[in-house]
Amino acid sequence: MNIRKIIREIKSIDNEWLEKAKARTAQLAIPPRALGKLHDVSEKLCGIAQTLSPDTSRRAVLVMAGDHGVAVEGVSAFPQEVTGEMVRNFLRGGAGINVLARMAGAEVIIVDMGIIPDVDKSCVGNAHFRICKVGRGTANIAHGSAMSREQAEEAILKGFSLASEQFSEGIQIIGTGDMGIANTTPSAAIGIAITGISTETMVGRGTGVNDQALANKRRIVEQALAVNRPDPEDGLDVLFKVGGFEIGGIAGCVLAAAYHRRPVVIDGFISTAGALIAYTLCPRVSDYVFAGHCSQESGHRAMLKHLGIEPLLDLGLRLGEGTGAVLAMNVVEGAVRIFKEVLTFEEAEVTNEKTNSTV
Amino acid sequence: MNIRKIIREIKSIDNEWLEKAKARTAQLAIPPRALGKLHDVSEKLCGIAQTLSPDTSRRAVLVMAGDHGVAVEGVSAFPQEVTGEMVRNFLRGGAGINVLARMAGAEVIIVDMGIIPDVDKSCVGNAHFRICKVGRGTANIAHGSAMSREQAEEAILKGFSLASEQFSEGIQIIGTGDMGIANTTPSAAIGIAITGISTETMVGRGTGVNDQALANKRRIVEQALAVNRPDPEDGLDVLFKVGGFEIGGIAGCVLAAAYHRRPVVIDGFISTAGALIAYTLCPRVSDYVFAGHCSQESGHRAMLKHLGIEPLLDLGLRLGEGTGAVLAMNVVEGAVRIFKEVLTFEEAEVTNEKTNSTV
Repeated sequence: MNIRKIIREIKSIDNEWLEKAKARTAQLAIPPRALGKLHDVSEKLCGIAQTLSPDTSRRAVLVMAGDHGVAVEGVSAFPQEVTGEMVRNFLRGGAGINVLARMAGAEVIIVDMGIIPDVDKSCVGNAHFRICKVGRGTANIAHGSAMSREQAEEAILKGFSLASEQFSEGIQIIGTGDMGIANTTPSAAIGIAITGISTETMVGRGTGVNDQALANKRRIVEQALAVNRPDPEDGLDVLFKVGGFEIGGIAGCVLAAAYHRRPVVIDGFISTAGALIAYTLCPRVSDYVFAGHCSQESGHRAMLKHLGIEPLLDLGLRLGEGTGAVLAMNVVEGAVRIFKEVLTFEEAEVTNEKTNSTV
Repeated sequence: MNIRKIIREIKSIDNEWLEKAKARTAQLAIPPRALGKLHDVSEKLCGIAQTLSPDTSRRAVLVMAGDHGVAVEGVSAFPQEVTGEMVRNFLRGGAGINVLARMAGAEVIIVDMGIIPDVDKSCVGNAHFRICKVGRGTANIAHGSAMSREQAEEAILKGFSLASEQFSEGIQIIGTGDMGIANTTPSAAIGIAITGISTETMVGRGTGVNDQALANKRRIVEQALAVNRPDPEDGLDVLFKVGGFEIGGIAGCVLAAAYHRRPVVIDGFISTAGALIAYTLCPRVSDYVFAGHCSQESGHRAMLKHLGIEPLLDLGLRLGEGTGAVLAMNVVEGAVRIFKEVLTFEEAEVTNEKTNSTV
């Protein structure tokens, strides 16, 4: 499988099923579209899976981890070793993503897309662990490209393959998540390269840097873009020049969802940078993407706008890991159940407004 | 029990426990407050229940139903008989609230606070049903008061008593919901009377009236306020003059939550009108209130601002029934689990930013 072949196979959402779903919604014994975005979600799911009985009960979240050479520039409030430490924490089951995924009934798959250390598999207790190392951290984007073009392709294909495996095992909806100290920096660079939004808007505080570090981070992002000059029309070019291994993996997950006609719920700033790479390769992917939430990280909303997707939650989250994606899976489940379980006006013997046209 | 005695017993949230909870949050192996509102929710729960182990696993939603004399003025897109028909639908288990409450693991208690028909108890299958009729629909507020002052007090006390019963049976968190054709009209009148916001902002389309009906609805609300002149400082005065039986019941639920130091998740526009009545009687109640969502109904945000509460969800819902309240219970549950289950930096052996102060 290569990326060109994947893209060729991706079709738009099925409008006929979307229309059928809208007609079904109109029959439910509630005022017209009174459950707002829940209707949009259920109908999109119908269009994706070409059915009036969407099922999202088998869930998984893929948490892609990678290290970033640009961390040496002091762009994060945390030291680089935290990436590996957090991967161990995920495997132990003690992190935010483990907690919220348990609640959502989602399996957790932690993926080493390219962190520096080797994580001892003996840690594994509460999550699946897959080693798909493309390298041991990217190079420093402030001075050159993050990786080679071949590595960018490898990262995408590894993500594609992992997500495809999940779908073939019966998973019906995936979430994406990330871990990688300093990864809001490459994500912001991707965001600026692809959307054209200003550095001011796109570069935020990440895990919480102070004013001085924020100014430095903005300078580094501008330097990375000036040094690398990524081509906004070419997702692979952007990824290899200013991206990250885990961001490529996320782009692969998004492509896999669209390829297999399955929904994917993206998390926050880093996942959305991955989705932007996939979107640049194939704009039709956004038909298959749900945005779990709008991050506290400035610039995320602009990224989502570029994808043409409205976020489901807005809770001031900025943790990553996939936490916003799995939390939003409950909203998706609510949408599915409303669509399938609410009685119609006729079934419920409730008078529809149309019978009372004088009002 | 009388209302004055209830109010006297309501204390503010416990700031000492709130501070203890904030200290615990700061130890969790995540960047400072990176899960945004989830931290605010879990800490408020700790302050409410005076514990660092809040538990909200036993849930119920009280759906208060009432009819409204003002329906004759053509303020709703649906005919008045729909109130009773929907109550039957709730008891049958086929409505939005049944579906989302099942998902949230919340018991559904349908309460006839004052609908016109008698609902045959034989319908009961999927929800508890309580008959607490204060009257058979309110009088038309466009021409006089909705009810007597005594009835307003009765409605509040019945709601208080029902919610208190839930708490004494072990329910740890309640949601409020409503059913009543035309009830956005009294709710808007309450909102204007108490917040002082303009009719333009406060009166919206409810179940979906057209432009002409909306203009009429605004005129009716203004007429109701001019005829009744409710005293914004006196919640009972506002309730009896321009309120509704189910709105009084909801106010009683909110008072009960504060009285018993338990959390209450309010739903949308009508529930918030009920909360405003309770707040006017005793401003300390807002310490115990979570706003499930921000309704599509214009004016809801202004009501929440008056209560000083931020909504958890913003999904364009405008159904009522308690749907937004139970959907938000999942967010509350996520907040609780994050607070109790995420490992601390020390437990997880993750380096905290403070150890890396040079960055």
